Amino acid sequence: MADKHAPDATRRSQRSRLAICEAALSLVAESGYDRLTVEGIAARAGVGKQTIYRWWPSKGAVLLDAFTETMVAGEWALPDTGDLAADLKTVLRATVDEFADPGFHAPYRALYVAMADDAELAAGFTAKVLEPGARAYAERIRAAQACGQADPGCDARLAAEALLAPFAQRWLMRNQPLSHAFTDSLVDLVLAGLRPRG
Amino acid sequence: MADKHAPDATRRSQRSRLAICEAALSLVAESGYDRLTVEGIAARAGVGKQTIYRWWPSKGAVLLDAFTETMVAGEWALPDTGDLAADLKTVLRATVDEFADPGFHAPYRALYVAMADDAELAAGFTAKVLEPGARAYAERIRAAQACGQADPGCDARLAAEALLAPFAQRWLMRNQPLSHAFTDSLVDLVLAGLRPRG
Repeated sequence: MADKHAPDATRRSQRSRLAICEAALSLVAESGYDRLTVEGIAARAGVGKQTIYRWWPSKGAVLLDAFTETMVAGEWALPDTGDLAADLKTVLRATVDEFADPGFHAPYRALYVAMADDAELAAGFTAKVLEPGARAYAERIRAAQACGQADPGCDARLAAEALLAPFAQRWLMRNQPLSHAFTDSLVDLVLAGLRPRG
Repeated sequence: MADKHAPDATRRSQRSRLAICEAALSLVAESGYDRLTVEGIAARAGVGKQTIYRWWPSKGAVLLDAFTETMVAGEWALPDTGDLAADLKTVLRATVDEFADPGFHAPYRALYVAMADDAELAAGFTAKVLEPGARAYAERIRAAQACGQADPGCDARLAAEALLAPFAQRWLMRNQPLSHAFTDSLVDLVLAGLRPRG
Protein backbone atom coordinates (compact mmCIF):
# COMPACT_ATOMS: atom_id res chain seq x y z
CA MET A 1 0.00 0.00 0.00
CA ALA A 2 1.58 3.39 -0.99
CA ASP A 3 1.96 5.87 1.88
CA LYS A 4 1.40 9.43 0.64
CA HIS A 5 3.88 10.81 3.16
CA ALA A 6 6.69 8.33 2.45
CA PRO A 7 9.97 9.93 1.35
CA ASP A 8 10.82 9.67 -2.36
CA ALA A 9 13.30 6.78 -1.93
CA THR A 10 10.71 4.70 -0.12
CA ARG A 11 8.11 5.46 -2.77
CA ARG A 12 10.59 4.45 -5.48
CA SER A 13 11.23 1.20 -3.60
CA GLN A 14 7.52 0.54 -3.35
CA ARG A 15 7.11 1.17 -7.07
CA SER A 16 9.95 -1.26 -7.82
CA ARG A 17 8.51 -3.94 -5.53
CA LEU A 18 5.13 -3.59 -7.18
CA ALA A 19 6.65 -3.78 -10.67
CA ILE A 20 8.61 -6.91 -9.68
CA CYS A 21 5.52 -8.59 -8.25
CA GLU A 22 3.44 -7.75 -11.32
CA ALA A 23 6.21 -9.00 -13.62
CA ALA A 24 6.45 -12.31 -11.72
CA LEU A 25 2.68 -12.87 -11.89
CA SER A 26 2.37 -12.10 -15.58
CA LEU A 27 5.44 -14.13 -16.56
CA VAL A 28 4.30 -17.21 -14.65
CA ALA A 29 0.86 -16.96 -16.24
CA GLU A 30 2.45 -16.66 -19.70
CA SER A 31 5.04 -19.42 -19.59
CA GLY A 32 4.89 -21.41 -16.35
CA TYR A 33 7.10 -21.75 -13.34
CA ASP A 34 9.80 -23.84 -14.99
CA ARG A 35 10.73 -21.01 -17.34
CA LEU A 36 10.40 -18.27 -14.73
CA THR A 37 13.80 -16.78 -13.80
CA VAL A 38 14.91 -13.93 -11.58
CA GLU A 39 16.60 -12.46 -14.68
CA GLY A 40 13.33 -12.57 -16.60
CA ILE A 41 11.41 -10.92 -13.77
CA ALA A 42 14.06 -8.17 -13.53
CA ALA A 43 13.94 -7.50 -17.27
CA ARG A 44 10.12 -7.31 -17.35
CA ALA A 45 10.03 -5.07 -14.26
CA GLY A 46 12.79 -2.77 -15.57
CA VAL A 47 15.02 -3.27 -12.53
CA GLY A 48 18.42 -4.88 -11.97
CA LYS A 49 18.67 -8.50 -10.81
CA GLN A 50 20.40 -7.30 -7.63
CA THR A 51 17.32 -5.25 -6.69
CA ILE A 52 15.34 -8.47 -6.59
CA TYR A 53 17.97 -10.36 -4.60
CA ARG A 54 18.06 -7.50 -2.09
CA TRP A 55 14.49 -8.35 -1.10
CA TRP A 56 13.96 -12.01 -2.03
CA PRO A 57 16.14 -15.14 -1.96
CA SER A 58 14.50 -16.90 -4.94
CA LYS A 59 11.93 -16.67 -7.72
CA GLY A 60 9.56 -18.73 -5.55
CA ALA A 61 9.78 -16.19 -2.74
CA VAL A 62 8.99 -13.32 -5.17
CA LEU A 63 5.98 -15.24 -6.41
CA LEU A 64 4.69 -15.93 -2.91
CA ASP A 65 4.80 -12.21 -2.03
CA ALA A 66 3.30 -11.23 -5.38
CA PHE A 67 0.49 -13.69 -4.85
CA THR A 68 -0.27 -12.77 -1.26
CA GLU A 69 -0.15 -9.02 -1.90
CA THR A 70 -3.38 -9.37 -3.86
CA MET A 71 -5.04 -10.73 -0.72
CA VAL A 72 -6.70 -8.25 1.54
CA ALA A 73 -6.09 -8.70 5.26
CA GLY A 74 -9.26 -9.64 7.12
CA GLU A 75 -10.83 -10.94 3.92
CA TRP A 76 -10.45 -14.45 5.29
CA ALA A 77 -13.41 -14.48 7.70
CA LEU A 78 -16.34 -16.55 6.44
CA PRO A 79 -19.86 -15.13 6.29
CA ASP A 80 -22.13 -16.06 9.19
CA THR A 81 -25.79 -15.91 8.22
CA GLY A 82 -26.67 -18.42 10.93
CA ASP A 83 -26.84 -21.29 8.40
CA LEU A 84 -23.52 -23.18 8.41
CA ALA A 85 -24.24 -25.33 5.36
CA ALA A 86 -25.36 -22.36 3.25
CA ASP A 87 -22.34 -20.27 4.29
CA LEU A 88 -19.83 -23.03 3.52
CA LYS A 89 -21.47 -23.70 0.15
CA THR A 90 -21.39 -20.01 -0.76
CA VAL A 91 -17.70 -19.66 0.02
CA LEU A 92 -16.66 -22.92 -1.65
CA ARG A 93 -18.69 -22.09 -4.78
CA ALA A 94 -16.91 -18.73 -4.96
CA THR A 95 -13.59 -20.57 -4.58
CA VAL A 96 -14.49 -22.89 -7.46
CA ASP A 97 -15.12 -19.79 -9.60
CA GLU A 98 -11.86 -18.19 -8.47
CA PHE A 99 -9.85 -21.28 -9.40
CA ALA A 100 -11.40 -21.22 -12.88
CA ASP A 101 -9.62 -17.87 -13.48
CA PRO A 102 -6.15 -18.41 -15.06
CA GLY A 103 -4.84 -15.16 -13.57
CA PHE A 104 -5.39 -16.71 -10.17
CA HIS A 105 -4.60 -20.34 -10.70
CA ALA A 106 -1.37 -20.00 -12.71
CA PRO A 107 0.66 -18.45 -9.86
CA TYR A 108 -1.09 -20.68 -7.33
CA ARG A 109 -0.12 -23.79 -9.26
CA ALA A 110 3.42 -22.49 -9.67
CA LEU A 111 3.67 -21.99 -5.92
CA TYR A 112 2.52 -25.56 -5.36
CA VAL A 113 5.24 -26.84 -7.67
CA ALA A 114 7.89 -24.72 -6.01
CA MET A 115 6.79 -25.69 -2.51
CA ALA A 116 6.86 -29.42 -2.95
CA ASP A 117 10.63 -29.13 -3.38
CA ASP A 118 11.28 -26.17 -1.07
CA ALA A 119 10.42 -26.59 2.62
CA GLU A 120 11.06 -22.91 3.42
CA LEU A 121 8.70 -21.68 0.73
CA ALA A 122 6.15 -24.29 1.85
CA ALA A 123 6.31 -22.84 5.36
CA GLY A 124 5.73 -19.31 3.99
CA PHE A 125 2.81 -20.41 1.80
CA THR A 126 1.32 -22.33 4.69
CA ALA A 127 1.59 -19.37 7.07
CA LYS A 128 0.34 -16.76 4.60
CA VAL A 129 -2.27 -18.67 2.60
CA LEU A 130 -3.23 -22.13 3.83
CA GLU A 131 -3.36 -21.54 7.59
CA PRO A 132 -5.47 -18.35 7.48
CA GLY A 133 -7.87 -20.20 5.18
CA ALA A 134 -8.13 -23.32 7.34
CA ARG A 135 -8.44 -21.17 10.47
CA ALA A 136 -11.32 -19.16 8.97
CA TYR A 137 -13.24 -22.37 8.16
CA ALA A 138 -12.52 -23.82 11.61
CA GLU A 139 -13.74 -20.60 13.27
CA ARG A 140 -17.00 -20.64 11.31
CA ILE A 141 -17.53 -24.28 12.36
CA ARG A 142 -16.75 -23.41 15.99
CA ALA A 143 -19.39 -20.64 15.86
CA ALA A 144 -21.90 -23.28 14.70
CA GLN A 145 -20.80 -25.59 17.53
CA ALA A 146 -21.28 -22.77 20.03
CA CYS A 147 -24.91 -22.27 18.98
CA GLY A 148 -25.79 -25.98 18.85
CA GLN A 149 -25.75 -26.34 15.04
CA ALA A 150 -22.79 -28.72 15.08
CA ASP A 151 -21.55 -31.40 17.49
CA PRO A 152 -19.19 -29.59 19.90
CA GLY A 153 -17.26 -32.86 20.36
CA CYS A 154 -15.95 -32.74 16.78
CA ASP A 155 -12.55 -31.32 15.86
CA ALA A 156 -13.42 -28.16 13.91
CA ARG A 157 -9.93 -27.88 12.47
CA LEU A 158 -10.05 -31.43 11.12
CA ALA A 159 -13.47 -30.76 9.61
CA ALA A 160 -12.00 -27.69 7.90
CA GLU A 161 -9.28 -29.88 6.39
CA ALA A 162 -11.87 -32.41 5.24
CA LEU A 163 -13.61 -29.55 3.37
CA LEU A 164 -10.52 -27.91 1.92
CA ALA A 165 -8.18 -30.79 1.09
CA PRO A 166 -10.42 -32.66 -1.40
CA PHE A 167 -10.85 -29.37 -3.24
CA ALA A 168 -7.08 -28.77 -3.33
CA GLN A 169 -6.39 -32.34 -4.47
CA ARG A 170 -8.91 -32.24 -7.32
CA TRP A 171 -7.50 -28.96 -8.49
CA LEU A 172 -3.90 -30.14 -8.28
CA MET A 173 -4.54 -33.46 -10.03
CA ARG A 174 -7.09 -32.23 -12.60
CA ASN A 175 -8.60 -35.74 -12.34
CA GLN A 176 -12.13 -34.89 -11.27
CA PRO A 177 -14.41 -31.94 -12.01
CA LEU A 178 -14.14 -28.91 -9.74
CA SER A 179 -17.77 -27.87 -9.73
CA HIS A 180 -20.39 -26.34 -7.47
CA ALA A 181 -22.09 -29.77 -7.32
CA PHE A 182 -18.87 -31.27 -5.96
CA THR A 183 -18.35 -28.66 -3.23
CA ASP A 184 -22.05 -28.78 -2.26
CA SER A 185 -21.85 -32.58 -1.81
CA LEU A 186 -18.62 -32.26 0.14
CA VAL A 187 -20.24 -29.78 2.54
CA ASP A 188 -23.21 -32.13 3.00
CA LEU A 189 -20.92 -35.11 3.69
CA VAL A 190 -18.71 -33.32 6.22
CA LEU A 191 -21.64 -31.62 7.96
CA ALA A 192 -23.43 -34.97 8.30
CA GLY A 193 -20.41 -36.00 10.39
CA LEU A 194 -20.81 -32.86 12.51
CA ARG A 195 -24.54 -33.26 13.15
CA PRO A 196 -25.35 -32.71 16.85
CA ARG A 197 -25.83 -36.06 18.64
CA GLY A 198 -29.44 -36.52 19.70
CA MET B 1 8.75 -59.09 -14.22
CA ALA B 2 11.48 -61.10 -16.03
CA ASP B 3 10.18 -63.93 -18.23
CA LYS B 4 12.53 -66.93 -18.09
CA HIS B 5 11.74 -67.86 -21.69
CA ALA B 6 12.22 -64.41 -23.17
CA PRO B 7 14.85 -64.19 -25.90
CA ASP B 8 18.20 -62.65 -24.93
CA ALA B 9 17.48 -59.25 -26.48
CA THR B 10 14.25 -58.93 -24.52
CA ARG B 11 16.00 -59.93 -21.33
CA ARG B 12 18.72 -57.36 -21.98
CA SER B 13 15.99 -54.74 -22.50
CA GLN B 14 14.34 -55.74 -19.27
CA ARG B 15 17.65 -55.49 -17.43
CA SER B 16 18.23 -52.01 -18.88
CA ARG B 17 14.74 -50.86 -17.96
CA LEU B 18 15.21 -52.09 -14.41
CA ALA B 19 18.63 -50.41 -14.13
CA ILE B 20 17.16 -47.14 -15.43
CA CYS B 21 14.26 -47.26 -12.96
CA GLU B 22 16.57 -48.04 -10.04
CA ALA B 23 18.93 -45.24 -11.07
CA ALA B 24 16.05 -42.73 -11.23
CA LEU B 25 14.77 -43.72 -7.79
CA SER B 26 18.15 -43.58 -6.09
CA LEU B 27 19.15 -40.29 -7.76
CA VAL B 28 15.92 -38.55 -6.82
CA ALA B 29 16.28 -39.76 -3.21
CA GLU B 30 19.87 -38.48 -3.12
CA SER B 31 19.53 -35.05 -4.68
CA GLY B 32 15.91 -34.18 -5.45
CA TYR B 33 13.88 -33.79 -8.60
CA ASP B 34 15.33 -30.45 -9.61
CA ARG B 35 18.79 -31.94 -10.12
CA LEU B 36 17.54 -35.15 -11.71
CA THR B 37 18.41 -35.31 -15.42
CA VAL B 38 18.00 -37.93 -18.13
CA GLU B 39 21.80 -37.75 -18.58
CA GLY B 40 22.36 -38.47 -14.90
CA ILE B 41 19.97 -41.43 -14.95
CA ALA B 42 21.69 -42.83 -18.06
CA ALA B 43 25.15 -42.51 -16.48
CA ARG B 44 24.07 -44.20 -13.23
CA ALA B 45 22.27 -46.98 -15.11
CA GLY B 46 25.18 -47.54 -17.49
CA VAL B 47 23.10 -46.98 -20.63
CA GLY B 48 23.07 -44.34 -23.35
CA LYS B 49 20.71 -41.36 -23.12
CA GLN B 50 19.01 -42.56 -26.31
CA THR B 51 18.05 -45.84 -24.64
CA ILE B 52 16.03 -43.84 -22.14
CA TYR B 53 14.41 -41.64 -24.78
CA ARG B 54 13.42 -44.77 -26.71
CA TRP B 55 11.07 -45.70 -23.87
CA TRP B 56 10.24 -42.47 -22.04
CA PRO B 57 9.64 -38.85 -23.11
CA SER B 58 10.97 -37.21 -19.92
CA LYS B 59 12.62 -37.73 -16.54
CA GLY B 60 9.18 -37.44 -14.94
CA ALA B 61 7.86 -40.31 -17.05
CA VAL B 62 10.84 -42.51 -16.04
CA LEU B 63 10.18 -41.73 -12.41
CA LEU B 64 6.48 -42.55 -12.68
CA ASP B 65 7.24 -46.00 -14.14
CA ALA B 66 10.04 -46.58 -11.63
CA PHE B 67 7.70 -45.70 -8.81
CA THR B 68 4.73 -47.75 -9.98
CA GLU B 69 6.85 -50.83 -10.80
CA THR B 70 7.38 -51.31 -7.08
CA MET B 71 3.61 -51.60 -6.66
CA VAL B 72 2.12 -55.05 -6.87
CA ALA B 73 -1.06 -55.37 -8.93
CA GLY B 74 -4.04 -56.31 -6.79
CA GLU B 75 -2.33 -54.96 -3.67
CA TRP B 76 -4.81 -52.11 -3.71
CA ALA B 77 -7.83 -53.91 -2.22
CA LEU B 78 -8.54 -52.93 1.39
CA PRO B 79 -9.00 -55.57 4.10
CA ASP B 80 -12.59 -56.41 5.01
CA THR B 81 -12.87 -57.76 8.55
CA GLY B 82 -16.49 -56.61 8.75
CA ASP B 83 -15.52 -53.50 10.76
CA LEU B 84 -15.24 -50.52 8.40
CA ALA B 85 -13.70 -48.12 10.93
CA ALA B 86 -11.07 -50.63 12.04
CA ASP B 87 -10.14 -51.53 8.46
CA LEU B 88 -9.78 -47.90 7.37
CA LYS B 89 -7.70 -47.08 10.43
CA THR B 90 -5.40 -50.06 9.82
CA VAL B 91 -4.75 -49.07 6.22
CA LEU B 92 -4.29 -45.37 6.92
CA ARG B 93 -1.92 -46.10 9.83
CA ALA B 94 0.15 -48.28 7.51
CA THR B 95 0.14 -45.43 4.97
CA VAL B 96 1.40 -43.02 7.63
CA ASP B 97 4.29 -45.42 8.31
CA GLU B 98 5.01 -45.82 4.60
CA PHE B 99 5.21 -42.05 4.10
CA ALA B 100 7.71 -41.83 6.95
CA ASP B 101 10.15 -43.90 4.82
CA PRO B 102 12.41 -41.61 2.71
CA GLY B 103 12.86 -44.32 0.06
CA PHE B 104 9.14 -44.05 -0.59
CA HIS B 105 8.39 -40.40 -0.09
CA ALA B 106 11.30 -38.88 -2.05
CA PRO B 107 10.13 -40.15 -5.47
CA TYR B 108 6.50 -39.57 -4.50
CA ARG B 109 7.21 -35.93 -3.67
CA ALA B 110 9.23 -35.55 -6.85
CA LEU B 111 6.30 -36.86 -8.86
CA TYR B 112 4.01 -34.33 -7.20
CA VAL B 113 6.35 -31.51 -8.18
CA ALA B 114 6.62 -32.76 -11.74
CA MET B 115 2.88 -33.25 -12.09
CA ALA B 116 1.78 -29.85 -10.99
CA ASP B 117 3.50 -28.48 -14.10
CA ASP B 118 2.89 -31.42 -16.47
CA ALA B 119 -0.71 -32.35 -17.22
CA GLU B 120 0.25 -35.53 -19.10
CA LEU B 121 2.32 -36.86 -16.21
CA ALA B 122 -0.49 -35.89 -13.83
CA ALA B 123 -2.88 -38.01 -15.91
CA GLY B 124 -0.48 -40.98 -15.72
CA PHE B 125 0.04 -40.61 -11.97
CA THR B 126 -3.69 -40.29 -11.47
CA ALA B 127 -4.46 -43.40 -13.53
CA LYS B 128 -1.69 -45.55 -12.04
CA VAL B 129 -1.58 -44.40 -8.43
CA LEU B 130 -4.33 -42.08 -7.25
CA GLU B 131 -7.35 -43.62 -8.95
CA PRO B 132 -6.65 -47.26 -7.92
CA GLY B 133 -6.19 -45.99 -4.36
CA ALA B 134 -9.40 -43.93 -4.28
CA ARG B 135 -11.31 -46.77 -5.96
CA ALA B 136 -10.16 -49.29 -3.36
CA TYR B 137 -11.36 -47.03 -0.53
CA ALA B 138 -14.67 -46.38 -2.28
CA GLU B 139 -15.20 -50.12 -2.80
CA ARG B 140 -14.58 -50.87 0.86
CA ILE B 141 -17.11 -48.18 1.80
CA ARG B 142 -19.62 -49.59 -0.70
CA ALA B 143 -19.26 -53.04 0.88
CA ALA B 144 -20.13 -51.43 4.24
CA GLN B 145 -23.12 -49.70 2.64
CA ALA B 146 -24.29 -53.03 1.22
CA CYS B 147 -24.36 -54.65 4.67
CA GLY B 148 -26.01 -51.70 6.42
CA GLN B 149 -22.89 -50.39 8.19
CA ALA B 150 -22.94 -47.12 6.25
CA ASP B 151 -25.66 -44.90 4.82
CA PRO B 152 -26.26 -46.14 1.25
CA GLY B 153 -27.34 -42.63 0.26
CA CYS B 154 -23.80 -41.28 0.68
CA ASP B 155 -21.35 -40.90 -2.19
CA ALA B 156 -18.68 -43.53 -1.41
CA ARG B 157 -16.21 -42.00 -3.83
CA LEU B 158 -16.52 -38.57 -2.21
CA ALA B 159 -16.06 -40.14 1.23
CA ALA B 160 -12.89 -41.80 -0.08
CA GLU B 161 -11.60 -38.39 -1.17
CA ALA B 162 -12.46 -36.90 2.23
CA LEU B 163 -10.27 -39.62 3.80
CA LEU B 164 -7.37 -39.45 1.37
CA ALA B 165 -7.06 -35.76 0.48
CA PRO B 166 -6.40 -34.37 3.99
CA PHE B 167 -3.64 -36.96 4.31
CA ALA B 168 -2.11 -35.94 0.98
CA GLN B 169 -2.33 -32.25 1.83
CA ARG B 170 -0.67 -32.60 5.23
CA TRP B 171 2.10 -34.62 3.66
CA LEU B 172 2.62 -32.16 0.80
CA MET B 173 2.55 -29.07 3.01
CA ARG B 174 4.45 -30.51 6.00
CA ASN B 175 2.35 -28.11 8.10
CA GLN B 176 0.62 -30.55 10.44
CA PRO B 177 1.69 -33.86 11.96
CA LEU B 178 1.04 -36.99 9.91
CA SER B 179 0.29 -39.37 12.76
CA HIS B 180 -1.88 -42.36 13.59
CA ALA B 181 -3.92 -40.07 15.88
CA PHE B 182 -4.66 -37.81 12.91
CA THR B 183 -5.77 -40.60 10.56
CA ASP B 184 -7.85 -42.23 13.34
CA SER B 185 -9.70 -38.94 13.96
CA LEU B 186 -10.20 -38.43 10.24
CA VAL B 187 -11.80 -41.88 9.91
CA ASP B 188 -14.09 -41.13 12.86
CA LEU B 189 -15.13 -37.78 11.37
CA VAL B 190 -15.88 -39.11 7.90
CA LEU B 191 -17.62 -42.24 9.18
CA ALA B 192 -19.83 -40.11 11.44
CA GLY B 193 -21.07 -38.54 8.21
CA LEU B 194 -21.76 -42.01 6.78
CA ARG B 195 -23.66 -43.35 9.79
CA PRO B 196 -26.87 -45.11 8.70
CA ARG B 197 -29.89 -42.83 9.19
CA GLY B 198 -32.20 -44.19 11.95
